[in-house]
Amino acid sequence: MRQHVNVITLGVADVERAYTFYVDGLGWVPTLHVPGEVLFLQVGGGVVLGLWSASAMVAEAGPTAPASGEQGRAPITLGHNVADEAEVDAVLAAAAQAGGSVLVPGARRDWGGYSGYFADPDGYRWEIAHNPGLVVHPDGRVTIGAVGETDGTG
Amino acid sequence: MRQHVNVITLGVADVERAYTFYVDGLGWVPTLHVPGEVLFLQVGGGVVLGLWSASAMVAEAGPTAPASGEQGRAPITLGHNVADEAEVDAVLAAAAQAGGSVLVPGARRDWGGYSGYFADPDGYRWEIAHNPGLVVHPDGRVTIGAVGETDGTG
Repeated sequence: MRQHVNVITLGVADVERAYTFYVDGLGWVPTLHVPGEVLFLQVGGGVVLGLWSASAMVAEAGPTAPASGEQGRAPITLGHNVADEAEVDAVLAAAAQAGGSVLVPGARRDWGGYSGYFADPDGYRWEIAHNPGLVVHPDGRVTIGAVGETDGTG
Repeated sequence: MRQHVNVITLGVADVERAYTFYVDGLGWVPTLHVPGEVLFLQVGGGVVLGLWSASAMVAEAGPTAPASGEQGRAPITLGHNVADEAEVDAVLAAAAQAGGSVLVPGARRDWGGYSGYFADPDGYRWEIAHNPGLVVHPDGRVTIGAVGETDGTG
């Protein structure tokens, strides 16, 4: 199995609500949008985020927990890296303005950087991070140096 | 906020069990491995998968549901596209050999392709798909044509 993810699919309660947040709110450009069914957004080289009707996900893939429920949020974080600490705070504010909810404000982290979290309208977590140890090279290769301790966030 | 995911972080019960599956079993190459804490694996242009100790995720990001529990599996699928139907079946078999569990065997789908699902040792779902409508271009751009109906899987 090649070491590649083509699609990160998240089950969403309402595809049009997700469209309002990601496309209208954040200004992202869809790869494909089938109203009420699915919204695909390119998020990396060879990689798209798929926001798919949760009921359709259950029908094809089997029983599926909610994005946010009594036990907490889904055990996933989508990490987005920015150039400096001020940009972390600016992106969190922009996400809140677009309809997201700030969960954890920007703060210095043990792993050597600065980050904060917001939730999208379904409750999926995004971490906005300034991590001087994570470098995306021009060819798309990522290197992560241990700056102090390291966590799972980049 | 730029349209990019740098890190797909999943909370895992045991980082070394994940290492055994992805590195020893599937033969993937780590970007960074801090034993017992985190394993990063490059999975796209500018994108890494981070398998992070679930307890550390909770401590930083707040209450987090399990990857697989009474309500079902986490509402995420990682999609991996291959060239033809036979390769779908071959990858599912290889994942099972490496310690994964086949959840849904390969089958023709309403959206025009062929796919099946396996779970990694934590229970996270991967879909192995042959989707003639999803094309990764040489520059990393992804296009998705509607081949019959479309779902969230690629």
